[in-house]
Amino acid sequence: MRIALVLEYDGSSFCGWQSQQSRGSVQDAVEGALSTIGGGNIRVMAAGRTDAGVHALYQVLHFDTQAQRPASAWVRGVNALLPESIAVLWASQISAAFHARYSAIERCYRYVLLNHPVRPGLGHRNIGWFHGSLDLESMRVAAQMLIGEHDFSAFRAAECQAVSPIRHLTRLDITRRGDIILFEIRANAFLHHMVRNIIGCLVYVGKGKHPPEWIKALLEGRNRAAAAPTFSATGLYLAGVRYDAKWNVPSFMDTPDDPVPLAVLPYLHRRTACG
Amino acid sequence: MRIALVLEYDGSSFCGWQSQQSRGSVQDAVEGALSTIGGGNIRVMAAGRTDAGVHALYQVLHFDTQAQRPASAWVRGVNALLPESIAVLWASQISAAFHARYSAIERCYRYVLLNHPVRPGLGHRNIGWFHGSLDLESMRVAAQMLIGEHDFSAFRAAECQAVSPIRHLTRLDITRRGDIILFEIRANAFLHHMVRNIIGCLVYVGKGKHPPEWIKALLEGRNRAAAAPTFSATGLYLAGVRYDAKWNVPSFMDTPDDPVPLAVLPYLHRRTACG
Repeated sequence: MRIALVLEYDGSSFCGWQSQQSRGSVQDAVEGALSTIGGGNIRVMAAGRTDAGVHALYQVLHFDTQAQRPASAWVRGVNALLPESIAVLWASQISAAFHARYSAIERCYRYVLLNHPVRPGLGHRNIGWFHGSLDLESMRVAAQMLIGEHDFSAFRAAECQAVSPIRHLTRLDITRRGDIILFEIRANAFLHHMVRNIIGCLVYVGKGKHPPEWIKALLEGRNRAAAAPTFSATGLYLAGVRYDAKWNVPSFMDTPDDPVPLAVLPYLHRRTACG
Repeated sequence: MRIALVLEYDGSSFCGWQSQQSRGSVQDAVEGALSTIGGGNIRVMAAGRTDAGVHALYQVLHFDTQAQRPASAWVRGVNALLPESIAVLWASQISAAFHARYSAIERCYRYVLLNHPVRPGLGHRNIGWFHGSLDLESMRVAAQMLIGEHDFSAFRAAECQAVSPIRHLTRLDITRRGDIILFEIRANAFLHHMVRNIIGCLVYVGKGKHPPEWIKALLEGRNRAAAAPTFSATGLYLAGVRYDAKWNVPSFMDTPDDPVPLAVLPYLHRRTACG
């Protein structure tokens, strides 16, 4: 039978989602714990392959097993075996027609950027940092140029294995809360490094290195070398995956917006007081 | 001359604030970096001696030095030498009459508690966790019984070295945002383990093990053995220290209240969606 899982993890101490020969991936840790509970070799398929250092609030997986276990065994039993930095949030049997990756119709990533002259101490593995001032209005104008279906070759890592560079970006919101800038980016799917490359380019626009129209020129030029460097992985979170409602996978993306759409770290204020 | 500093740190990988023979304390790391920048042996005095695993959003220090350095050297220069999990936020020369510990008139601690059936994956070193349901109204009634000047012997660690167990608690607010419960506790000063012991007792009240009046009986009984176990250090933050305005130390505690009074971690929603 097929089982679907929702997973959260802190990516700081892993070499990324995907299984590596050297081990040390989130996938290796999860497959190890599931195989122990299932009493057999379990391989999983994930909605998104996060890079080294990237976190997940809401990764979705599926796997097939002969083992008959209550859903609680796939949650509490597996959590008892996983490293502290990974937790299963939800598990359920699901139709064999469901596929965590191919059934996904939208992914949501969030990026948490500390914008303050002083580097982070607390949260240094869980936020990105930019020291200079940033013009959010320019960044928002630039962000809107990315919305829609485009060839994102300029924002794609050289090692990206996707067949097509065409993606449909559905949302790119930028909000500030104190010294924290929050990005929410949604698309049908993402290319390798696409979110971090977009953040890097938006920071270039925000600091005034280029006008917002530069983003449009980048898209049209389809040349990765013309874009900004890939931004730090530390602030990036796979925040949600949307499926057709028929699958009954709980969707973070359908919950109503909170006045705090994302992560506001504990130290919001104090930074403000220190200028 | 005397210099005052404001510091933030993630306490996860330190044995606490206070210098230890075995090293590995926040104080050891800070004194090492300051001594290098100052070109001499610098010893610091802190407003609060946080335990192992406890974080600081706003620790205040002072030290004396003969070295003439611009304030930026005590911030950026020191930060270049400190471990990534410690950062100086602010530095300034200050009157020799100022004392980080003895001039402090109020301390503020915050506790971030994940209240969800499933343990945290992300943020496991930076939040506490309680799996069962909690009645916040009972907890708030109990909390109010602690406000004012009391003998806090029932909430004091055996190894506490304070001369008097009398403290004046000025505020104890409890708010919920999704699955996160935030505690804000202010007092003129705290006894060893006092905040964590209070959190433990409030959780006992919240889960229905004791009625709110139990807190009053605990205070009056002055018997640590009658109270709940010390709650986890992971969710605790030294969030602010207040001084008389004449010292001109930037005070986190004077900034206006944000609609998000504290730390709301990135994954607020997703937990809610997973039930």
